[in-house]
Amino acid sequence: MSNQSNDLNALRHSAAHLLAHAVSEIYPTTLLTIGPATPEGFFYDMLPEKNFKEEDLPLITARMQEIVTKNYPLEHTQIPKETARKLFAKNPFKLELIEQIPGDTVGLATQGDFYDLCRGGHIASTGLLGHFKLQSISGSYWRADRNNQPLQRISGVVFFTQQELEAYEKHQLELHLYDHRRLGKQLDLFSFHDEGVGFPFFHPKGKTVINVLTAYMRKLQEKNDYQEISTPTMLSDELWRKSGHYEFYHDKMYFSVIDEKSYAIKPMNCPGSILVYKTRPRSYRELPLKLSEYGHCHRHELSGVLHGLMRVRAFTQDDAHIYCAPEQLEHEILTIITMVFKMLSKFDLHDIRFAISTRPEKYMGSDILWENATKALTDALEKSNAQYTVKAGEGAFYGPKIEVVIQDSMGRSWQCGTIQVDFFQPQNFDLSYVTAQGTKQRPVIIHQAIFGSLERFFAIILEHYKGNLPFWLAPVQIKILTVTDAQKPYATQLYHTLKKTGVRVELDSSSDPLSGQIKTAQQDRIPWMLIIGKKEAESQTVTVRYHDGKQEPAVLLENLYKKIQESSL
Amino acid sequence: MSNQSNDLNALRHSAAHLLAHAVSEIYPTTLLTIGPATPEGFFYDMLPEKNFKEEDLPLITARMQEIVTKNYPLEHTQIPKETARKLFAKNPFKLELIEQIPGDTVGLATQGDFYDLCRGGHIASTGLLGHFKLQSISGSYWRADRNNQPLQRISGVVFFTQQELEAYEKHQLELHLYDHRRLGKQLDLFSFHDEGVGFPFFHPKGKTVINVLTAYMRKLQEKNDYQEISTPTMLSDELWRKSGHYEFYHDKMYFSVIDEKSYAIKPMNCPGSILVYKTRPRSYRELPLKLSEYGHCHRHELSGVLHGLMRVRAFTQDDAHIYCAPEQLEHEILTIITMVFKMLSKFDLHDIRFAISTRPEKYMGSDILWENATKALTDALEKSNAQYTVKAGEGAFYGPKIEVVIQDSMGRSWQCGTIQVDFFQPQNFDLSYVTAQGTKQRPVIIHQAIFGSLERFFAIILEHYKGNLPFWLAPVQIKILTVTDAQKPYATQLYHTLKKTGVRVELDSSSDPLSGQIKTAQQDRIPWMLIIGKKEAESQTVTVRYHDGKQEPAVLLENLYKKIQESSL
Repeated sequence: MSNQSNDLNALRHSAAHLLAHAVSEIYPTTLLTIGPATPEGFFYDMLPEKNFKEEDLPLITARMQEIVTKNYPLEHTQIPKETARKLFAKNPFKLELIEQIPGDTVGLATQGDFYDLCRGGHIASTGLLGHFKLQSISGSYWRADRNNQPLQRISGVVFFTQQELEAYEKHQLELHLYDHRRLGKQLDLFSFHDEGVGFPFFHPKGKTVINVLTAYMRKLQEKNDYQEISTPTMLSDELWRKSGHYEFYHDKMYFSVIDEKSYAIKPMNCPGSILVYKTRPRSYRELPLKLSEYGHCHRHELSGVLHGLMRVRAFTQDDAHIYCAPEQLEHEILTIITMVFKMLSKFDLHDIRFAISTRPEKYMGSDILWENATKALTDALEKSNAQYTVKAGEGAFYGPKIEVVIQDSMGRSWQCGTIQVDFFQPQNFDLSYVTAQGTKQRPVIIHQAIFGSLERFFAIILEHYKGNLPFWLAPVQIKILTVTDAQKPYATQLYHTLKKTGVRVELDSSSDPLSGQIKTAQQDRIPWMLIIGKKEAESQTVTVRYHDGKQEPAVLLENLYKKIQESSL
Repeated sequence: MSNQSNDLNALRHSAAHLLAHAVSEIYPTTLLTIGPATPEGFFYDMLPEKNFKEEDLPLITARMQEIVTKNYPLEHTQIPKETARKLFAKNPFKLELIEQIPGDTVGLATQGDFYDLCRGGHIASTGLLGHFKLQSISGSYWRADRNNQPLQRISGVVFFTQQELEAYEKHQLELHLYDHRRLGKQLDLFSFHDEGVGFPFFHPKGKTVINVLTAYMRKLQEKNDYQEISTPTMLSDELWRKSGHYEFYHDKMYFSVIDEKSYAIKPMNCPGSILVYKTRPRSYRELPLKLSEYGHCHRHELSGVLHGLMRVRAFTQDDAHIYCAPEQLEHEILTIITMVFKMLSKFDLHDIRFAISTRPEKYMGSDILWENATKALTDALEKSNAQYTVKAGEGAFYGPKIEVVIQDSMGRSWQCGTIQVDFFQPQNFDLSYVTAQGTKQRPVIIHQAIFGSLERFFAIILEHYKGNLPFWLAPVQIKILTVTDAQKPYATQLYHTLKKTGVRVELDSSSDPLSGQIKTAQQDRIPWMLIIGKKEAESQTVTVRYHDGKQEPAVLLENLYKKIQESSL
């Protein structure tokens, strides 16, 4: 831990004391329990005589500020447990804590009249604590045990400077404003309903984005010789038992019965893909055989952890299974990593990190197979100049893998893609191909997902772009606005011309003033507005206004078409 | 019934006698039961001492031909039942029949030595029966009752002329050769597996066709202002109870349990679409709101009726729900019919018939609503010059509908699209829109599917085209062949150029003689071969060879590109 984070911990812990100090002045009967620093800020768990409400926070905040102004020095001393028992005689929580601390003494922190049991680790005085904010009141339990006394937790954040506090608050506001669930509703992209908890309903604009994401990935895959398949949503339990998913994944699977036989609703696409591989003998000439599938999978999640499109119970994977000879591994991995870089840069995601998980204690497959595969992964990452770390021993029992982690425009990290080598299923399903020499050989499978889940990736980029999807991906790419109704005929003609070429275009048919039309288009996050006034109509041009407010006047239609083509998928 | 079909019935029935005649000569102990004409041909159910086998058919056929040559006249007389009982004393089946015939006499047919109980209806003599073919031996039961004596059935067909018989046999052979299940395997398009009975697995080439079909329909829908949505695969029983599907469709639905609540795997997309409609208030300005969905639906079928892609347990509908004001019905129906014509002609299906099903005895919705809706359907069909029939009283209780029936290149009829007006669900789910006057109004729903099921439509056109899908739809559109390896560099370059433009192209990398390469490409049903010899390589041209064998020599590349563009989707 660095000094700075030690200091920040001290600041946060001291702010918890400050909070407790203010509360015990305003509500002297409140029983204090514990108040630690957290990775985000601080909290204090308390038992008030009367429950705190959100409305109480300003009063508590004001008293905390007063104590800051008084700039009490923070003192910390060791006192005999005997003394401590007297000081905290009325607080059974503190008494319990005192008994559990080893030795004959306990630490006591003092600031002005206020004292608290404390291990130590403070800043110099309360004057340094001015840049805090109380955030929330929530329920908790003594020692975080549901069987114990329920308590109330007041949480907050604190910083060394006002600037830092303001930056934090701005960031929080952004996270709120650009929460994909909020944007999804605002922009009419998708919805959730009680009739299907955790299952997204895509509205036309949201479905357009999903379709463009799919079209983009299909194109990328086609260029790299992937071949798309589709396999059933429901497959018999027997298959899932054979694949091992039943044993390890059973709790997350949904089941149904057909003709008195149990079927699972697929949580992954692998077994289906493997059945397609096995429909006929395969030759070395077909390898690497890259079978992709936009498979719609269902996996159970507890209702409490469902979170918009980020965590759902049904999602579409941009899945692929590469069946290859062991000696083709490195080349194939390199190709996938190149696709990952290409895809992420298309979405303006440039902070990309990889992690290799290597052979765990329990594993299957020969040592030489593991060594070669791990070397193939490492060499591929090296050759692509990728930043990566090694998670030693964290691979699955059936093969090493690479995970892709990105950082978005709001500084958050997301795991997107996975590249998993698999020695197990080829053996389990007795897969083979015929070599040039006519012998039978076992292929290796690479499981690959680049977006991961289309739904989740949609959520990530929606937040990453703060709702302003780029031109090629936006559900409505262009809106045509007219200064007066006199330009409507020209506007309508342009609308139809653009629509015919496949552009996702709208025409503002209202007679609102231009400023109102612009405001609406901006609220709808439409990347390009084509503004048509008298001049434009006469000269058969448009003024292009971008979402950020920049304008390009008098754009000739042929230049507009060229611009559109250059900016399209 | 026309005279001709009466004659044909007489011919078929007489052929059954001919069969029985031959059998009783060769296997005199065989007990005959009944031998009627069928809509396809004829059969005779018998109880032989020793079961017949396929190998016995040539012998029986030969004896039948002998009897034909003898040209026995067919005589029919009425005889007393008493006489009949003596004639058939050893045959309990015939004795049972004699007792059931009303009156004191029964009919007896005689040809040469052979006689049989018979109601009558014969041709003049056995000499007319030469153009027959025995087809199969199968199991049956006396009086078609599983509790009765098992019998053996020999079936056959018969025609007036050898020409007719040959045409029939050719047609049968075609039906066999172009059976989509056979083509699907031959061309590596799809497969079925015991792990998911009735659920198709699409291989790369089959999935390509499904994707092109989808792309085609999306384009057609976009032009007509449809907006695509997607809704969950699993929705709670409550919803299906509310929609009425649970009550009426329960037997065909699969179920699962999530968080102790029962969910159905969707058999249709309507309830999901309706929930999307209801996510926010709708204005008259949005109507007609056309929400399309390529919904993956599951419906139970008995395992005995599953038939390749024609009848499956999971399929994708090109579904759409049009929410419109009642007065918009006719215009919307007209638009859909226009789309139907457009789509079918794209697939060279020109024999199209429509049927309107009108108000049944039990119905909901006001009489005026029904009248207007039925008039809207009729007027729309009239305006589009469509051939149609009226199925009076055959509509669903919730609205009238139009069915689309096509005839394929092998003369078979298929129901494809449906256009169903629905007054029930809008009321059931309390749907509304706000009118220009600010009042609330109930919309009507049109359920629409043009392909119907993508899987089934794929099967239909695969058979219709006898495996030779047109250029725009074929999974591999072009294959490049070279006369010698010297042309490989030019061929490879052309391959990459074409691939980049999105053409589905293959390069024959073998060094087989050209004739062998052509044979392979023809077997793979590839529409265009580009043949490159010395001359083509030197002049930077290609010879285009079509699947039917026609060739176009020395085609300049720029003309080839133009040709491709014109022939593409």
